[in-house]
Amino acid sequence: MNIEIVTIGDELLLGETIDTNAAWLARELGDLGISVVRRATVGDEAAAISSAVSDALERTGAVITTGGLGPTSDDRTRPAIAGLFGRELHENDAIWQGLRAIWRERGRQGEPPPANRQQALVPEGATVLANRHGTAPGLWIEDDRGRWVAMLPGVPREMRGLTRDELLPRLRDRLGDDRRVVRSFTLRTTGVAESMLPDLLGQYSTGVDDATLAYLPGQEGVDLRLTVRNVPPHEADRLLEESAGSVRPLLGKHWYTDGSIDLAEVVISLCRTAAKHIAVAESCTGGLLAARLTSISGSSRVFRGGIVAYDNSVKIEQLGVGAGLLERVGAVSEEVARAMATGARRSMKAEIGVGITGVAGPEGGTPEKPVGLVWIAVDANDSITVFQGRFIGDREEIRFRSTQAALDMIRRELLGIA
Amino acid sequence: MNIEIVTIGDELLLGETIDTNAAWLARELGDLGISVVRRATVGDEAAAISSAVSDALERTGAVITTGGLGPTSDDRTRPAIAGLFGRELHENDAIWQGLRAIWRERGRQGEPPPANRQQALVPEGATVLANRHGTAPGLWIEDDRGRWVAMLPGVPREMRGLTRDELLPRLRDRLGDDRRVVRSFTLRTTGVAESMLPDLLGQYSTGVDDATLAYLPGQEGVDLRLTVRNVPPHEADRLLEESAGSVRPLLGKHWYTDGSIDLAEVVISLCRTAAKHIAVAESCTGGLLAARLTSISGSSRVFRGGIVAYDNSVKIEQLGVGAGLLERVGAVSEEVARAMATGARRSMKAEIGVGITGVAGPEGGTPEKPVGLVWIAVDANDSITVFQGRFIGDREEIRFRSTQAALDMIRRELLGIA
Repeated sequence: MNIEIVTIGDELLLGETIDTNAAWLARELGDLGISVVRRATVGDEAAAISSAVSDALERTGAVITTGGLGPTSDDRTRPAIAGLFGRELHENDAIWQGLRAIWRERGRQGEPPPANRQQALVPEGATVLANRHGTAPGLWIEDDRGRWVAMLPGVPREMRGLTRDELLPRLRDRLGDDRRVVRSFTLRTTGVAESMLPDLLGQYSTGVDDATLAYLPGQEGVDLRLTVRNVPPHEADRLLEESAGSVRPLLGKHWYTDGSIDLAEVVISLCRTAAKHIAVAESCTGGLLAARLTSISGSSRVFRGGIVAYDNSVKIEQLGVGAGLLERVGAVSEEVARAMATGARRSMKAEIGVGITGVAGPEGGTPEKPVGLVWIAVDANDSITVFQGRFIGDREEIRFRSTQAALDMIRRELLGIA
Repeated sequence: MNIEIVTIGDELLLGETIDTNAAWLARELGDLGISVVRRATVGDEAAAISSAVSDALERTGAVITTGGLGPTSDDRTRPAIAGLFGRELHENDAIWQGLRAIWRERGRQGEPPPANRQQALVPEGATVLANRHGTAPGLWIEDDRGRWVAMLPGVPREMRGLTRDELLPRLRDRLGDDRRVVRSFTLRTTGVAESMLPDLLGQYSTGVDDATLAYLPGQEGVDLRLTVRNVPPHEADRLLEESAGSVRPLLGKHWYTDGSIDLAEVVISLCRTAAKHIAVAESCTGGLLAARLTSISGSSRVFRGGIVAYDNSVKIEQLGVGAGLLERVGAVSEEVARAMATGARRSMKAEIGVGITGVAGPEGGTPEKPVGLVWIAVDANDSITVFQGRFIGDREEIRFRSTQAALDMIRRELLGIA
């Protein structure tokens, strides 16, 4: 099956928003064996929408649009495409009642404003794709020659949810059995430079295996993507599993998980298995480590809490770091990181305490303590591990990389692979 | 001048690479007054390239392509577009000598491989756009009716350099003095539903003014983008300033800043002006509020610190929340939010204390305290303000929206606009 995507919105044409929807859709469709053969982007103008969708329908008969389904006057997708199919728009009572229910759930008074009414309009004969992730439902419209357009909202979170809930199952049904797919599998590493990986991977990277290999470096580390193309689904899964199985051991302690799982989730899950509790004390990362750990559902069972000791007075009073020590060695030092880790562990009665202190920049660096210097300590009660990071990047990158290094230290501590 | 952009590459269609080139180009062109009226993306297939470029030429007579100029067999842009203009390709000796020089500069031996030769091919009558940022030169091809295609490399760094060095000056010349630009200005609001804005804006939104208005809803609130089109540059700035000046008062307390500034930055800056210090106590947001505040450079002058009181024991021991109170009303309650705010303010000696407690989900909701229920308190020493949020979305969204609401409460407190 060949498909075209039309993304709609002035903000896309003006370059104010980068279109991530099209790439996400292409990957999901590729996984079903559906090829995106062309993509177009137009603004919020009915004529442009209808011309782009009409061209695409002419070529493939199968089009997905994103955007232009909102409640305001710049949302023209619905009437433009209804017009293209020669259908009238009618208010759908179920959608309208749903919009009213959302309005009330949000604790608002009275009726939703009139602008919301256009979100309840449905072209004659179109199918409503229920949106459990926001207010704008998707729509599926099809003519008697089987040519169809699926209209999705533009907000990425809603578009993704609706695609998974409604669109992909519908497309899977249409495709039936004889599918060829492109499928990928990702192995995640951290704490190792991209340029060192080819050595670690040895002959695998020279391409003896069936899956091709791509290196994807990012703030979290380097992801390795294995890809197989143009094979039946079950064959794809088998090939990827085999390849992952031969690559994983080569990565040693640097491999931390598969897929798109966050390192924080790995750490929370290891803590649950080991029945250990974590408490953190953060200076330069300012709460980001706690925020990453608590972003994992279920973290409350093992995460006791954190102290963001930004001001030195908080380090002294909440964590028991010695005022004399701070005076003598400065806040960014191995000794203070250790004292913070121990203070966090003891004051919040955890088995594992973490301390982070560093210079996130852009100001505050000195020749001895430059921007990017970060000390991290993990106190596991009977032993303390310390790491000195020299991170590059801007403030946010240095902060994020610090939390990633701290999480990896906890992971290794829990696995006993220092 | 209207223009279309065609971005070329299988990796774009497959969704492996997100197309950032098109958005970057649109912003640069918009600043010259050139409107991008449509965008298309095709794979590395000569027929698809030539069909997309031909459609675009038909509509606007002015097309920019990116990608497909490299040295490998999947680089088909050059022959596809030469074919469309009915031109032969000839090897250009200056380009070839340039490629040989780059080869030697990189310390390589012998001659560049034969594959590099195709990068020296130039369609008859085309102009070479020198690339000082990489190996693939750009090309400008034009027919006798003045219709043109500018071919740029796909690597973002090279594409940007070449656009600035060669393409923009050329387009500026073509436009002459009589330039007309598209320019935007953004007003940021929070704490108000998108569908309520048309009411607030009254007659402005019906389009009596010169700038058009777009609503851009997101987790931070709703941004209002004012856009003027097709006016001289100085006139554009004046119109935007005037329009912003008439819209801003209509937004009242919901407007918090202009442009792309984060609410945390607004809050830090207000604190610095008022010489007030902040301390936070977070439960469901788990450090995210502290992380947002500390992401602002210079926040250390006003942010004392935070306590992530995830476990109730931390609420009791670090914040002085009464064990009996927790027992009686539960952790997610107005009373506990108040006690947390006061505990944070007192224990960290700040003028402003914030407390957040809620149900971030996806688990832990009850009929009385559903997922999304969040209590936020701001203790400003002589008064405590409390807000009950009913946020929708997944765990991360509920957490983020909670921090945004808390920041807005601090902002209003500092401005005295409760």
